[in-house]
Amino acid sequence: MSDSFFDAHRATLEGALAAIDDRGFWAAYPEVPSKRIYGETAREDGMAAWKSRLGKPFEVDQPGVVGTVAAETSPYGIATDISYPSIDLNQLLPAAVAAMDTWKRASIEDRVGVCLEILHRLNRRSFEMAFAVMHTTGQGFMMAFQAGGPHAQDRGLEALAMAYRAMKACPASATWTKQVSKTETITLNKSWRIVPRGVAVNIGCSTFPTWNGYPGLFASLATGNAVVVKPHPGAVLPLAITVEIARDVLAEAGFDPNVVTLACDTQDAPVAQDLVVHDSVGIVDFTGGNAFGDWIEANATQAKVYTEKAGVNAVVLDGCDDLRAMTGNLAFSLSLYSGQMCTTPQNIFIPEDGIDTPDGRMSFDDTCAAIVKAVDWFLSDPARANEVLGAVQSPATVQRQGSAKTAGGTMLRDCTPVPHEHFPDARVSSPLIMQVDAADAALYQQECFGPVVYIVKTGSTCESITQAADTAKAKGGLTAALWTRDDRVIDAATDAFGDAGVALSVNLAGQIWMNQSAAFSDFHVSGANPAGNATLCDMAFVADRFRTVATRIPVAAPVEEAAC
Amino acid sequence: MSDSFFDAHRATLEGALAAIDDRGFWAAYPEVPSKRIYGETAREDGMAAWKSRLGKPFEVDQPGVVGTVAAETSPYGIATDISYPSIDLNQLLPAAVAAMDTWKRASIEDRVGVCLEILHRLNRRSFEMAFAVMHTTGQGFMMAFQAGGPHAQDRGLEALAMAYRAMKACPASATWTKQVSKTETITLNKSWRIVPRGVAVNIGCSTFPTWNGYPGLFASLATGNAVVVKPHPGAVLPLAITVEIARDVLAEAGFDPNVVTLACDTQDAPVAQDLVVHDSVGIVDFTGGNAFGDWIEANATQAKVYTEKAGVNAVVLDGCDDLRAMTGNLAFSLSLYSGQMCTTPQNIFIPEDGIDTPDGRMSFDDTCAAIVKAVDWFLSDPARANEVLGAVQSPATVQRQGSAKTAGGTMLRDCTPVPHEHFPDARVSSPLIMQVDAADAALYQQECFGPVVYIVKTGSTCESITQAADTAKAKGGLTAALWTRDDRVIDAATDAFGDAGVALSVNLAGQIWMNQSAAFSDFHVSGANPAGNATLCDMAFVADRFRTVATRIPVAAPVEEAAC
Repeated sequence: MSDSFFDAHRATLEGALAAIDDRGFWAAYPEVPSKRIYGETAREDGMAAWKSRLGKPFEVDQPGVVGTVAAETSPYGIATDISYPSIDLNQLLPAAVAAMDTWKRASIEDRVGVCLEILHRLNRRSFEMAFAVMHTTGQGFMMAFQAGGPHAQDRGLEALAMAYRAMKACPASATWTKQVSKTETITLNKSWRIVPRGVAVNIGCSTFPTWNGYPGLFASLATGNAVVVKPHPGAVLPLAITVEIARDVLAEAGFDPNVVTLACDTQDAPVAQDLVVHDSVGIVDFTGGNAFGDWIEANATQAKVYTEKAGVNAVVLDGCDDLRAMTGNLAFSLSLYSGQMCTTPQNIFIPEDGIDTPDGRMSFDDTCAAIVKAVDWFLSDPARANEVLGAVQSPATVQRQGSAKTAGGTMLRDCTPVPHEHFPDARVSSPLIMQVDAADAALYQQECFGPVVYIVKTGSTCESITQAADTAKAKGGLTAALWTRDDRVIDAATDAFGDAGVALSVNLAGQIWMNQSAAFSDFHVSGANPAGNATLCDMAFVADRFRTVATRIPVAAPVEEAAC
Repeated sequence: MSDSFFDAHRATLEGALAAIDDRGFWAAYPEVPSKRIYGETAREDGMAAWKSRLGKPFEVDQPGVVGTVAAETSPYGIATDISYPSIDLNQLLPAAVAAMDTWKRASIEDRVGVCLEILHRLNRRSFEMAFAVMHTTGQGFMMAFQAGGPHAQDRGLEALAMAYRAMKACPASATWTKQVSKTETITLNKSWRIVPRGVAVNIGCSTFPTWNGYPGLFASLATGNAVVVKPHPGAVLPLAITVEIARDVLAEAGFDPNVVTLACDTQDAPVAQDLVVHDSVGIVDFTGGNAFGDWIEANATQAKVYTEKAGVNAVVLDGCDDLRAMTGNLAFSLSLYSGQMCTTPQNIFIPEDGIDTPDGRMSFDDTCAAIVKAVDWFLSDPARANEVLGAVQSPATVQRQGSAKTAGGTMLRDCTPVPHEHFPDARVSSPLIMQVDAADAALYQQECFGPVVYIVKTGSTCESITQAADTAKAKGGLTAALWTRDDRVIDAATDAFGDAGVALSVNLAGQIWMNQSAAFSDFHVSGANPAGNATLCDMAFVADRFRTVATRIPVAAPVEEAAC
C-alpha cells in the first residue's frame, strides 16, 4: 500500500528536491482557489464539510481520551461550538511509543510515501481547511486558503523532501574492502538503519497552525518518530483535521494510526509543559510566544527542541524612486492579517532629514504622512479592508493596541474598528501608527504583536540600520525591508541584517511583500537571533531528527584453490 | 592565495565527497608510515622536530597570553618539559570575534581551501605528530602515527567535506519568478550568505586529541566560525602543533590568524567552564568524561553543544565457527591501547550454558578460559605487547584497575605491569579480567575506563543482548560485537543495538576489530544514547554550525514597447 503511495507521488517529491536545489519559484500545490483546479463544487463541498463539524464533538479514536475541551471561538464572532478530546498523557504517550515499533522499521520510501499521501489528501481538502483556518485564526478567506492550505502543504513537502535527502545521504548498505597487508584484504558488509529520536511533540500556534506546524510534523514523521500534535486551544480544528487525515492514511497503509495523535488542552489546564519534558519525548517543535518558547528551550533538555518565537521586524526608509509604489507596498504589508504575521514589520526607521527621491529630499513628516495616507487609502474600500485585515485572533491583541496608544510617542494614525460586511461581530481593528524617537527604545525595541506600527525618527540611515539590526540581535527579528536609491546602503544593510540573522527585502514594489516567505526558496527564521533556534526548512531542521546506526558483518573470503 | 589552496586540493575534497556517498573504503592520507610515501628521512625528521620542542616554551603569537602552564608528562616516563601559554579569556575571545569579520565574509571555497591546506600540512608532519601523540596519550608508535596522523586527518577531511556539502545545499544566488496575475510576473534576485554561530570552543581529550578534535575544528572553521582550541592539560602538544600550522596557513592566505587560537590551562586552574558559557561562544565541541560533558550540555545553553562522552561497550558471545579466530580477535580488541579507546569493549556476556561451536556446546568456564588464554598468548611477546598496549595515559586508570579487583566478582586474569623494552619508566598495565553475574549490575553497568574487562554470566543469549543494550541505553554505548552461528540472533541483536544507538560488529576475524571506526564509512557515536549527543560525521554534525540568510531584490521588469 505505502509503496504505491511513494510511487504515486514520486514526481511531487522529485519536483520538491529539484526546487530545493534551485530555489527558484516552485509549488506542488496550486495556490489559486479555482474551480478549474480544485473542482466545480470544491468551495461548496469544503464549506459543507466544515459546517458539518460545527456544534459537535470532534471524535478521534485514539488511546487516552478522558473527556472533552472546548475553548475555540471564531474571531469573526460566529458560534462554532466544536469540542475536542482531552487526553491523559500517561495513556497517550505509551501508545505513541508503541506505534513507533513498526513505523521506524519501515523503509524510508514507505514512510515518505505515507507522508506524501497525507499531503495529497490535505490538498484535496484545502477548501474545508480554509474555513477551518479562517474561523480559528481570523485570517481572511484568501489567506486562509493559501497559507492554511497549499502554502502550508508546500512547506510540509519542503521539510519532507529535506528529510528524505538527509536520510538518503547514507546508503542503506555498502561493501567496504580494505587492504590490510600486502596479501590480505578485509571485506565488510555494512548496513545502516534510521533510528528515530522518540516521540515528537508539535505545538501549534493560534495564527498559522498548519503553515508553521507542517514542517516539523512531516520532518519528524518521515524520520521514524511518532508525533503528538498539541494545537493552540484557540486554533484546534485545522490540526485536528490534519491528524484525522494522517491517521486514516497510516491505517490504510497498515501502520498503527497512533503514529499521529492529538493532544488538546485549554489555557486554564494546559498539558504542553508536562508533555514536552516527558522522558519519552525526543523532539519538540514549537511555534508561539517567547516566554513559553524560552521555557521549553531551557527545560525540555531531554529533547531536541526547534522553536519559532517572535521578533521585532524593521523597515528602513532611505529613499525611493516611486513613492506611491513604496507606500502602497508598505501599506499592504502593515495591513495584511492585521499585523499578526511573525514577518510583519513593526518599526519603520526614517531619518530626521527625510528620504531621497527623484524630486529631491522628502521631509520626515511628509514621508510619515505618505505612509498614513497609503494605509488609509488601502483600507478605504471596505471589502478589500475586510479581506486583507481579516479578524484579530485574540482579544489581547486589541487590548495591546490600546496600551500602545497611551504608552508614549505621537499618534499618527488611530486604530479603528472596521465593520465587516458579512460578520457583524467580527473582531477587526485597523493599524495604529505611532511616531517615536530613536531614544524611545523601551517603546519600540520589543514586540508589540498585532496591528501596531512605530515610525522611528533617527539621525541618519546609518543609525536606522544599526538600531534595526541591534533590535533584531537583542529581541529577535525575522524580516527587514529597505527602500533606497543608493547601492552602498544596500551593501551596508545586507551586512548588518545578515549578521543579525534577518532576511532582507530591498525596494519591493507590486505583488510581493516583505511578509512573504515562499517554500522551496525562502528560509523562514534564521536561528541566528532570539526569534527562534530553527529554520524552515534547512538541513539542520531535519538532520538531527534521526540517528544512523550500523551493523558490520565480514564477507567470507573466497575459498582459494589449493596451489598445487 | 586561498583560491589556489582550493584548486590545489580540489581532488581531495571531491574524493571525500564521493566516499561519503559511497561509504566503501577510502582514505585521503596514507596510514602506512612508509619512507616511500612520506619520504626517506620522514621519521628521523619528525623525531628531530618533536625533540626540538622538548624542554622549551611552546610559543604562540596570539593575544591574551599572560603566563605559562606546564602539566604535560609522557606516559612513557621520559621528561618532555614543554610549557604552553596560559591566556586571559577576556583578551583572547574579543580577538577571536574580531578575526571572524573577514573570515565569515570569505567565500566558501576560500575557507574550505584554507582548511584543506591545513590538513595537507598536518599530513606532511605526521611523524612529528606521531611522537607528540605517543608521548602525551601513551599510544604505541604505530597507533599514534595512524590515529593521531592520517586517520585524524581523514576524519577532519570528512567533516570538512560534509560542511562543504551542507553549505553548498543552498546556492549563493537564484532568480525567483512568480506569476502573480494573468499578465504580471514578479522576479526577485535572491542571494544567500553563510552566517557563523560565533566562536567555537574545541575541548580536546587526553587519549585521541587530534582524532576526536579535528572534525569539530574543521567543521566550525569551514562554516565561518573562529575556533579556540582548549587541549586537555595532559595532551597539549598535538593540538598546539595543529594550531601553529592553522595560524600559519591563515596568515599566508591573508586572514587574521586569530581565527584559530590556543587556550591552555591546568587541572588545578581550568578555564573550560568559563570558556564554554561565554556569551561570544556559539559552538562547543567536547570529548571527555560524562561529568563535565553533562555539565556543558546543561550549562552552555547559549551555544550549540556537540559531545562525545563515555559508554559501556559490550560483546555478546553466542557461538562461533572458529574459536581461535574469535578469541584472537577479541584479545586484540581488549589489549589495544590498554582499553583506553572509547570503542573498547568492557563487558563480555556469555550464557551460563556456554556457546555454540561446530564441535557442540562449549561450556561457560571453557569459553572464559579461552579468552584469558588468548590475551595471555597475545601479550606473551614483549615487543608486540608494548606496541599494542602502549602506555596508560593517567595514573588514575591504573588505580581504577586496583579498585576493580576488590569491588566484587571473581578475578580470571590479574592485571600486571608489563616492562617496556625502550622506556623503563613507562606506565604499562595489562588487562584485568573479572567474572561477574548478570545480577551484579552495579559492577559492570558503569564505565570502568581502561584495561578492565567484565565477563558477565547470563541465563541466555537473549538476556545477554537485553542486558547489553539496556546498559547502553542507560549509561551510553558506542560499539558492540556479537559472535554467533545463528542468523536469528544477528537479527535480534541488530534490532536491539540499533534501537540503543550502538554500532554492531558481527563475527569479526582477522585484521578488523570492533574498536575501529573508519572515516568516510563508520559513524562514530550515534547521539542516540548517553555516550554523546553528536555523530562523527553525519549531516547533523555540520548543518547547525552556520545559518543561511537571504537578501531579495526585485529585477526591474523589461520595458515593453508601446503597443502601437
